[in-house]
Amino acid sequence: MTNWALGIDLGGTAVKIAVIDREEGMLAHERHPTRSEEGPDGVVSQIAALAFAFYSRFADRLGRERFCGMGLGAPGAVDSVRGMLSYPPNLPGWERFPLRERLLELLDSAHGMACPLHLDNDANAAAYGEAVFGAGKAFENFMLVTLGTGVGGGIILGRRLYRGPSGTAGEVGYMTVDYRGESEHAGIRGTVESLIGKKGIVSLGRTVYRGRPRSLWNEEVHGRDLCDLSPRTLEKAAHGGDAVAAEVWEAVGEVLGAGLAGVVALMDIRTFIIGGGVSGAGDLVFAPAYRRLKASTLPSMQEGLAIVPASLGNDAGVYGAAALCFSPVA
Amino acid sequence: MTNWALGIDLGGTAVKIAVIDREEGMLAHERHPTRSEEGPDGVVSQIAALAFAFYSRFADRLGRERFCGMGLGAPGAVDSVRGMLSYPPNLPGWERFPLRERLLELLDSAHGMACPLHLDNDANAAAYGEAVFGAGKAFENFMLVTLGTGVGGGIILGRRLYRGPSGTAGEVGYMTVDYRGESEHAGIRGTVESLIGKKGIVSLGRTVYRGRPRSLWNEEVHGRDLCDLSPRTLEKAAHGGDAVAAEVWEAVGEVLGAGLAGVVALMDIRTFIIGGGVSGAGDLVFAPAYRRLKASTLPSMQEGLAIVPASLGNDAGVYGAAALCFSPVA
Repeated sequence: MTNWALGIDLGGTAVKIAVIDREEGMLAHERHPTRSEEGPDGVVSQIAALAFAFYSRFADRLGRERFCGMGLGAPGAVDSVRGMLSYPPNLPGWERFPLRERLLELLDSAHGMACPLHLDNDANAAAYGEAVFGAGKAFENFMLVTLGTGVGGGIILGRRLYRGPSGTAGEVGYMTVDYRGESEHAGIRGTVESLIGKKGIVSLGRTVYRGRPRSLWNEEVHGRDLCDLSPRTLEKAAHGGDAVAAEVWEAVGEVLGAGLAGVVALMDIRTFIIGGGVSGAGDLVFAPAYRRLKASTLPSMQEGLAIVPASLGNDAGVYGAAALCFSPVA
Repeated sequence: MTNWALGIDLGGTAVKIAVIDREEGMLAHERHPTRSEEGPDGVVSQIAALAFAFYSRFADRLGRERFCGMGLGAPGAVDSVRGMLSYPPNLPGWERFPLRERLLELLDSAHGMACPLHLDNDANAAAYGEAVFGAGKAFENFMLVTLGTGVGGGIILGRRLYRGPSGTAGEVGYMTVDYRGESEHAGIRGTVESLIGKKGIVSLGRTVYRGRPRSLWNEEVHGRDLCDLSPRTLEKAAHGGDAVAAEVWEAVGEVLGAGLAGVVALMDIRTFIIGGGVSGAGDLVFAPAYRRLKASTLPSMQEGLAIVPASLGNDAGVYGAAALCFSPVA
């Protein structure tokens, strides 16, 4: 007889919801297109309805008295103390929104439901998910880095989330590793995300391929105009033996490793768990990233240095959101 | 009637010792050349003798019962829990040394003195000194960055030192900001220290001046061979109206600002207190550093962003070492 909670992962494209049992893990989950065109109020009613439906379906079976509440991971800057969400990317029209208050109000008024509600940044939720249920179980301290459309991060120190004084910590994608470079993301030059976010990888890949017109895959897979070049095609090309694609991943790993070396130097964190769609490239990116990370770290700080793949995939967010309800988190 | 403590700052060149009163601040201090050629045992006896002499001089006047102990800041990796010092730069032959144990043993056997002894990294001690007695008094969270021969740092979170899981946190000088660059320090490419440690500034200055042979100061102050170029001459040249020197400081500030932007993104720390000899350049470096810091930080993370000069100068280390005795520090 263990505790259970609802975990919700709010994104610009989809709302994911799951029932998570503390011992058994995920018992059910669904994914729905986010009704982002209806603005914050529409999305809040969507979440409230989904949460109430899930709660109702499982409350008798799992026990109302063992229900710990719901956790919600959201993109953008989240003030988890005040329950405010600020400027979530891919959710236009939100600006600063009192998400927890509104959701609790609506759960009460529309569904007569009251429960604890924990709100956090989506990358923090994913990091906490890996800490409690995934690849981070064995580590006291680590950083989860998500490589996807963007590059995000969440920090676990002493098994707790490190959110920073105003709750915006962990944004490894906004660290500058190429201060004189031309790459840019969100108006900032030379950041990790500008170089190896999805757009960055595509741009980097095109640059490398343009210099190597005789690559087998250049013509056969991507075509001469390189329009189909993406992390996915680069992964296939490299696995298919294309040396140029492997070179692109080498370059991606260099950037990642240099960024992570900064995390080691600054925070004394030495374990990096890598998730997100692009991390599917595995050792294509992990191996060069580790080489650069090690080469860019003082010998006295190399003990325990490790890059480890995440294990919960796209479910890390819902796992972690639910896990926020199980334990007190700093 | 307040508490008092001894603060000791061990460096490769000098041992500084001070009597610090919790309310009154520094009551006395001395500086002695480090007997580094005698190895760890010689330095430990030097410190023990100095500490005992200072204690004896002040114990009756300030009260033995109000003596809180001694704090010691040392260069290199310090394990403040186990009292171990590892590979202190500029102190050859130390490797891994049980500094606290040896010092306590010698205080007892040679001087019959027993007291609490707190050991920490010198940059951490300086950060804590600024927090308790200096420019950091007003801030809950900040990073002290020391610009000198090297670039060091110490992190204060919630008025406590953040040391990291193994005690090596705060090494902002080892963050990579120019991952493709050629600059190098301690075998690592493109770090903040490789670019704007003292050697980095000189090298950067020479590059800029070589491209501008007609600079007034190039011939009159530095001479054509640029041998006299140093942070100090660059400071004088800029204050004297040399536009090229100002350009060099602009470039130094760019690197500093880009590095600090990584601290904001990762740790959500927004106040930077800048000390060390090179920080004497003041706004020559602070102004461009702040511009780049702001330009490299998301708008949602700019609230409270500030660069502030340190206020304790070379005494921050002894202040902070003593302050370690006054309060419980995480």
